[in-house]
Amino acid sequence: MVGEADGITPAELAAATPLASQALAGVKQLSTSGVIGFPDLPQHTTLAKEIQAYAAKLQGTYDTVCLVGIGGSALGAWALDCAARGPHPVQGEYSAAKPRLVILDNVDPEFVQLAVASMKPKKTLVVVIAKSGATAETVATFLIVRAWLIAGAGAKLAKSRIVVVSSEGRGDLKVMATAEGYQTFHLPENVGGRFSVLSAVGLVPAALIGIDILALLKGAAKMTALAWTPELSDNTPLRAALLHYLALTKKGKTIQVAFPYANRLWGTAFWFRQLWAESLGKAKNRAGETVHVGQTPIAALGTTDQHSQVQLYMEGPKDKVFSFWTVKKPADPGKIPVEKTGFEGFDYLTGQSLAKLLDVECKSTQAALTENQRPNCVFTLDRIDTEHLGMFFQLLEFETAFVGEMLNINAFDQEGVELGKKFTFGLMGRKGFTDFKKRYTDYEARRKG
Amino acid sequence: MVGEADGITPAELAAATPLASQALAGVKQLSTSGVIGFPDLPQHTTLAKEIQAYAAKLQGTYDTVCLVGIGGSALGAWALDCAARGPHPVQGEYSAAKPRLVILDNVDPEFVQLAVASMKPKKTLVVVIAKSGATAETVATFLIVRAWLIAGAGAKLAKSRIVVVSSEGRGDLKVMATAEGYQTFHLPENVGGRFSVLSAVGLVPAALIGIDILALLKGAAKMTALAWTPELSDNTPLRAALLHYLALTKKGKTIQVAFPYANRLWGTAFWFRQLWAESLGKAKNRAGETVHVGQTPIAALGTTDQHSQVQLYMEGPKDKVFSFWTVKKPADPGKIPVEKTGFEGFDYLTGQSLAKLLDVECKSTQAALTENQRPNCVFTLDRIDTEHLGMFFQLLEFETAFVGEMLNINAFDQEGVELGKKFTFGLMGRKGFTDFKKRYTDYEARRKG
Repeated sequence: MVGEADGITPAELAAATPLASQALAGVKQLSTSGVIGFPDLPQHTTLAKEIQAYAAKLQGTYDTVCLVGIGGSALGAWALDCAARGPHPVQGEYSAAKPRLVILDNVDPEFVQLAVASMKPKKTLVVVIAKSGATAETVATFLIVRAWLIAGAGAKLAKSRIVVVSSEGRGDLKVMATAEGYQTFHLPENVGGRFSVLSAVGLVPAALIGIDILALLKGAAKMTALAWTPELSDNTPLRAALLHYLALTKKGKTIQVAFPYANRLWGTAFWFRQLWAESLGKAKNRAGETVHVGQTPIAALGTTDQHSQVQLYMEGPKDKVFSFWTVKKPADPGKIPVEKTGFEGFDYLTGQSLAKLLDVECKSTQAALTENQRPNCVFTLDRIDTEHLGMFFQLLEFETAFVGEMLNINAFDQEGVELGKKFTFGLMGRKGFTDFKKRYTDYEARRKG
Repeated sequence: MVGEADGITPAELAAATPLASQALAGVKQLSTSGVIGFPDLPQHTTLAKEIQAYAAKLQGTYDTVCLVGIGGSALGAWALDCAARGPHPVQGEYSAAKPRLVILDNVDPEFVQLAVASMKPKKTLVVVIAKSGATAETVATFLIVRAWLIAGAGAKLAKSRIVVVSSEGRGDLKVMATAEGYQTFHLPENVGGRFSVLSAVGLVPAALIGIDILALLKGAAKMTALAWTPELSDNTPLRAALLHYLALTKKGKTIQVAFPYANRLWGTAFWFRQLWAESLGKAKNRAGETVHVGQTPIAALGTTDQHSQVQLYMEGPKDKVFSFWTVKKPADPGKIPVEKTGFEGFDYLTGQSLAKLLDVECKSTQAALTENQRPNCVFTLDRIDTEHLGMFFQLLEFETAFVGEMLNINAFDQEGVELGKKFTFGLMGRKGFTDFKKRYTDYEARRKG
C-alpha cells in the first residue's frame, strides 16, 4: 500500500510514526490496567486443557455440535470450523468420529426448523454461548432446542448434553445453568464478544469438533509478542493499523475489502467483518465530539468475486482499500490433467495447477487494481493450520485495537445497538420497556402516515 | 425511504419523476431493439419444458449436481438452491430422490479437492456453465472434474453425465461439447451472466435439483408486466430504482445494504451483489466522461448481522441506504415452548414465536436506523416460493437496469475486469498475451523495489 495507486507515501508513513507509538502505548495501558483482556487470552492454557479434558470425556458420543449463539458468540467458531474442515457443503460426511458444527445464529423459524430436523437429539451436543446471558435471539432459540433435546433424549441425558459459555457474574443463562447443573465455562468480563475467539467462546466449540486449541493459543501468543514490539517495521499489526488508519483518514478510503484467496478463510472474513465494523464504527470520540467514524468492511472471496465485485472495485468510486489474504503453501496443488484436449482455450492450462492459477489470478488482480490507482496490501499465511490461524486472529485483533487508539475512540463498546434491542424488548412485552413500545408505535404511525 | 432519516423528500421524488419515465423508455428501447434480452426470458417456456424433460429423463440416477461455473454462472443457482432448500449445513440429507447442489465457483485447490472427495462419480451430474466458453477458472476446474468423472464412471457414462450451458456461437467449451456429444443448452448472446438466472444458466441446475422452473418464469413474467407500467406509483422496480438513484446522487449514499431477514434469501443477496456492483460500477458514462460511479452493495443477514454490522450502520459514516428484505408468511412460525422457566430473562419469550421475534427485530432495527437518520426501505415477499422468487429476481434486474439509465451508463458490460484477465492469461502462458506478462513483471519489480 506504500507508494503508488493512491496509497500512503513514505513521507506520510514517516510523519505518522509517532501516532503509531502512541497507539501502541495506549493499547498497552488498556491491557495492563485490565480494561481489555484479549491480549492475555493466549496465556490461558490451563482453561484450554480443562476444555480439552471435557471434550475428551464426551468424544464419540455425538455427531453434531449445535452452537446456539449470535455475533461474537458464533463467528469465531465458524471461522475455526471453516478453516480447519472447509466450507459447507464440501466439508464432507460427519460422524461421531468427525462431528460437524451446526451454528444457530439466527431466529429465522424456517432456518431453525431445518436445523433441528437435520439433527438427532441423542447424537447432539448443545453449546449455548451468550456473554450477557440474556441475548433475546439466543434465549429464544435455546428454549426451542432445549425442549427438543429433552423430548428426544430425555431430561437426564439432556442435562449432560448442554454446555453453557457466559460471563461468570450475570445473566439468567448462567443462573439457569447452575440450577440445572449444566457444564459451564466462563469468559472474562473484560473480553468483548468480537475479541473472544481465543476465550471459552471459541475454544469450547473448537475443542468439541477436534481442533487443537493449544496450537491455536500458541500461534496467538507468538503474535501477541510481535504486537508489543516497539519498532514499527517489526510490528505487523501496528504497521497494518497505521496503513489502514491513513488510508481512511488521509485518502478517504471508507471501505476495506477483506479479500481472502482461500475458501477456508471465508468464515474468518466474516469474523473480521464484525471485529472491524463494531470496534471502529462510532458516533463519538473519547473527547465526546460527534465524529461518525468507521471503515465499512466487506468480505470478498478470490477468485470467485473477481466475477462479481471486481468490476466495481476497478472502475467505481475510489473509496476502497484492499487487503488480500493469501496462503503460501496450499496442502494440495490441484494438478490439472496433462493430457491435451486439442482446444486452445483449454490446453494452455493442462499440466499446470489450480494453486498456480489461484496465485496468478490474485497477483493479476492486485496489479490491475494498482494500475487503476486502487491501493492494496497483502497478508500472507504460510499455511492454513490452527497455529497460523491463532496468529492471524490476534494480528487482526491488535490491528483493530491500534486503529481505535489512532482514531481516539473506544473500540470496545457497542452503544449503537442498544436502541434496537430496547425496541425489541418493548415489542416482545418484556417488563420495564413499555416506553420503547410507545416510542416505536409513534414512529410506525409516522412511517405509514 | 421517503421523508425522514436523510431520505428522499416528496419534492425531490416529484422533481425526478421525468427521469424515471426516461429511464423506463430507455430500457424499453434496449429491449425492443434486442440489445438486452433479460426482459424476454420469462417467455421462454418452451426451453424450460425441454430442460424439464431432460431433467425428468435423468431423475433418480444422481444424488449430486456439481455445477462448474463462476460469477453469473453460479450465483443464480446458489440463490435458487438456498431459497428452495435452505442454506448449508442445515439443508439436510441428500439422496437420489433429493439431490444436492455442489457449486465449484473457485479454483482454490483445497476447496476443489474437498468437493471432489465428497462426491461419488457414478452418482454425480456435472453442469458446466460459461457464457464465453473460455473462462479460465471454469475450464481449469472442469478439466479436473472431467478426468475424475471419466476415471470413476468410465468414458461412456461420463459423456451422458456432463451438460454444458454456453453461448451458441463461441468458445472452446461449446466446440468440445459438440465433439464429445455432451448435452448442451444455450443462453442468448444478449443476456449477460448477471442477468441470466432465468435463462438456461439458472434453469438447468434448478430443474436438476427439482425446482419448478415454470413457476419461476411465471412469477418473473408478472413482474415484467409491472416493470413496463408507465405510472411510477404502480411500477415497483422503477420506484425502487428512482429512490436508490436519488439516495446515491443526492444524499451521498455510496453503499447499499441488502438486508434479508431470512436465511433462505442469503444466496439471493449474493446474487444481487453481483448484479448491482457489476452493472453500476463504471469508470465512464455514455458521453465518455470519467465518472467512477457506482453504489457498493453489501449483503447483511438479519437478525444475525445486528450483532456484527449494525453498530457501524447506526453510528458510523452516513454513507449507507438500507434495503430490508422481509417475508410476510414464514412456512413455520417457530413456536417457543409455553412452559415458564422461572427466569425473567427467558419468560417474556415463552409462548411467543421466532417469527414474531424476527419481525419485531427487523422493525426495531428499521426504527432505530430511522432515529439515527439512516434512510431505509423494505421489500416484502409474501412468501419464499419459486414464483415469488422469480418475481423478485426480475424486480431487482429491472431496478438495476433503470438505475443504469438514470446514471447514463452502460449497465450491461464489464470492461473493468479485462485487464486482470489479460494479466492472468499472460502469466499462465496463453498464446497472444506475452505483452501482459511483461507488463506484470514490470509492475512486480516496482512493487518490490
